Amino acid sequence: MTPSDVLRSNANGLHSASASAAQEPSGLFTFSQQVDSWVVRTAKPVSYEIRVTDDVLDPSRTDLLEAGSSGERPGTRARRFVVVDANVDLLHGDRIRAYFDHRGVDHRLCVVPAEESVKSFETAARIVQEIDAFGIARRQEPVVVIGGGVLMDIVGLVSSLYRRGTPFVRVPTTLIGLVDAGVGAKTGINFNGHKNRLGTYFPADLTLLDRCFLNTLDRRHISNGLAEILKIALIKDEGLFRLLERHGGLLLEEKFQGLSSTGELAGSETLRRAIHGMLEELQPNLWEAQLERVVDYGHTFSPTVEMRALPELLHGEAVCVDMALTTVLAQRRGMVSEADRDRVLTTMRALELPTWNDLLTGEILATALQDTVRHRDGQQRLPLPVGIGGAAFVNDVTARELADAVAGLRSLQGREVGR
Amino acid sequence: MTPSDVLRSNANGLHSASASAAQEPSGLFTFSQQVDSWVVRTAKPVSYEIRVTDDVLDPSRTDLLEAGSSGERPGTRARRFVVVDANVDLLHGDRIRAYFDHRGVDHRLCVVPAEESVKSFETAARIVQEIDAFGIARRQEPVVVIGGGVLMDIVGLVSSLYRRGTPFVRVPTTLIGLVDAGVGAKTGINFNGHKNRLGTYFPADLTLLDRCFLNTLDRRHISNGLAEILKIALIKDEGLFRLLERHGGLLLEEKFQGLSSTGELAGSETLRRAIHGMLEELQPNLWEAQLERVVDYGHTFSPTVEMRALPELLHGEAVCVDMALTTVLAQRRGMVSEADRDRVLTTMRALELPTWNDLLTGEILATALQDTVRHRDGQQRLPLPVGIGGAAFVNDVTARELADAVAGLRSLQGREVGR
Repeated sequence: MTPSDVLRSNANGLHSASASAAQEPSGLFTFSQQVDSWVVRTAKPVSYEIRVTDDVLDPSRTDLLEAGSSGERPGTRARRFVVVDANVDLLHGDRIRAYFDHRGVDHRLCVVPAEESVKSFETAARIVQEIDAFGIARRQEPVVVIGGGVLMDIVGLVSSLYRRGTPFVRVPTTLIGLVDAGVGAKTGINFNGHKNRLGTYFPADLTLLDRCFLNTLDRRHISNGLAEILKIALIKDEGLFRLLERHGGLLLEEKFQGLSSTGELAGSETLRRAIHGMLEELQPNLWEAQLERVVDYGHTFSPTVEMRALPELLHGEAVCVDMALTTVLAQRRGMVSEADRDRVLTTMRALELPTWNDLLTGEILATALQDTVRHRDGQQRLPLPVGIGGAAFVNDVTARELADAVAGLRSLQGREVGR
Repeated sequence: MTPSDVLRSNANGLHSASASAAQEPSGLFTFSQQVDSWVVRTAKPVSYEIRVTDDVLDPSRTDLLEAGSSGERPGTRARRFVVVDANVDLLHGDRIRAYFDHRGVDHRLCVVPAEESVKSFETAARIVQEIDAFGIARRQEPVVVIGGGVLMDIVGLVSSLYRRGTPFVRVPTTLIGLVDAGVGAKTGINFNGHKNRLGTYFPADLTLLDRCFLNTLDRRHISNGLAEILKIALIKDEGLFRLLERHGGLLLEEKFQGLSSTGELAGSETLRRAIHGMLEELQPNLWEAQLERVVDYGHTFSPTVEMRALPELLHGEAVCVDMALTTVLAQRRGMVSEADRDRVLTTMRALELPTWNDLLTGEILATALQDTVRHRDGQQRLPLPVGIGGAAFVNDVTARELADAVAGLRSLQGREVGR
């Protein structure tokens, strides 16, 4: 609109701009030929729940069927399309089927092998075709996904796209799913060699966090999830860092199953702090209007490193390599003491996470930074730790400084490193 | 949450539910082990503009570059990725290139042959790959699309998915683009044989309506757009219907170029009423929380008929066949008089739109209705005209009634019908 335009609005928030100010006595709207612009202003209300629920597959529990059921009419049988990770199906498929059978739900299980290398449109398309074949009512029959972060991201994207939005319910079965992918609103698939290049913001109506699933997770995947917990600790929660520093080994050992009283306390406190810290950052910035996000810590160089390393590195492992590098970089800037730097690297190793990868070359880091700058709309907006539990953003990291940080990190690698 | 849960919230709208009410003195939030649920409540603000602009490619005009430019830093050259329909490129490509050259914009033109049969993920993927190759900053370099409804829908989807949302600017070049696809927030691609099965709600930041493009449109595509204008007329604007009834032939003849004073008045009034009527319906219901939508008139059976008929029917033509059928159905229910039914069918023919298609069989209509019922969450919610300019929703249409309406419509086909 030109500055001389006059805005008029009706009660619904629909505005029209007119080059002529004099022809409409009230705030109502006309079809005047002077009208040359409409402005629509509205807001989409969003709410979603993340609920801690032990043993969600216990047939007496109804959590899994709550979302979406309000629209059902009496006498109709509930129907659910359920996407299950192939490994989860091997371990828990019988209980999943028994649950829906017991609850009298007409269901179809769609079993999908999910890992980073198949986080593609092809996998999403296969799920859409099965949904089409099963047929679901648009609002009252939410899609259910039971699996890790990759599968939740894919099914979230499918749900957001199917008929322009179908509700869904998430049951994360991995630690990284419980504390990261299952907490936020992001969905996505990899495309054209880039991580999560295509996606949406579309939170599940309900996410059920059941740590019982972690019991069947292998040790490496516990470490993988601990990396994202460590991220939250490093940039905003020193107390959480101390929990990891002191009890990281126990958490790995007990897989958050509370086998000892210390393990129970440390495990539940770690999960709650990690999830709560994540939500504190996401909730006011769910659509990333603000591109300076502390939760992007560890996610500046790792998207490119992770994709180039496939299938070597899990997501949390790539994030940890990024954090190790940027911890050294921050220490060299005087933002982190040498002692704290060493505490961080020692804790990473205690969590059995990598602090080095041979892909940390000048060329790959430059490529990664260039893409991240585009992702952050033209600036680095690089979150760096300040001490332990604080963060600041910088925009002036150079190739020279990166090379020095890489050299510094390399010199700190001891014999115990190198998974 | 169970009924005994107590909700507490912090100022940011993040809620936690606790099974214990007694441990937190203030409204603040703790990491208590009794906390078993977080509820996130927020809203995404959305605003977009639709601006009437004659001769948008005039090098002196800046409208096309306004959106997104606020983020540019001094001294940087503007960059735009521009998707252009292949036919539009043949007719206007030189002017498009000259415009961006004249404005000093570093640009890449991505020329895409767009029609319903290539409204697919493959076409979207090709555009994404070219965006990746060109490289755009996430918020300040909006994608520009110049083309018809199909291309705008595809590029809208690409924009909504690319890095989970990149702004875009639409320049519709067809009549249906000006009054329908360019006005709302829907994006989409066809998938698995279903029309717009995958999509999002993601309005362009700015849509520029330039009727000059209609001058190079063939007569059939003017008719195609008039079908969506007729839809708005039939269900909510009797005055608009009278405009079409009286001046439809002239609008087709003059292609909205205002060659006569009557044509100028009728054309501009028709466009403004159609767009405004559409926005009145969309604005309060942009995400279709309410599934009873009068603008769904003509869109109950047509999605299936259009896809089965490909490439025979254009979108507006399929919509018109649906409206012809449901006009007869409404007349048989006594909601429309015989005289008004005949005025409607006569006007459709005067607009050179089809009122019949051989795909109006019992099997196809049943399939179409079944899918539409799923789309409308388990009920028909079928909008029917009430007289001319009114609408009501019904949920009780039967196969028998449809067969009778088909027979009635067939008996009304005169010799002038059958494009």
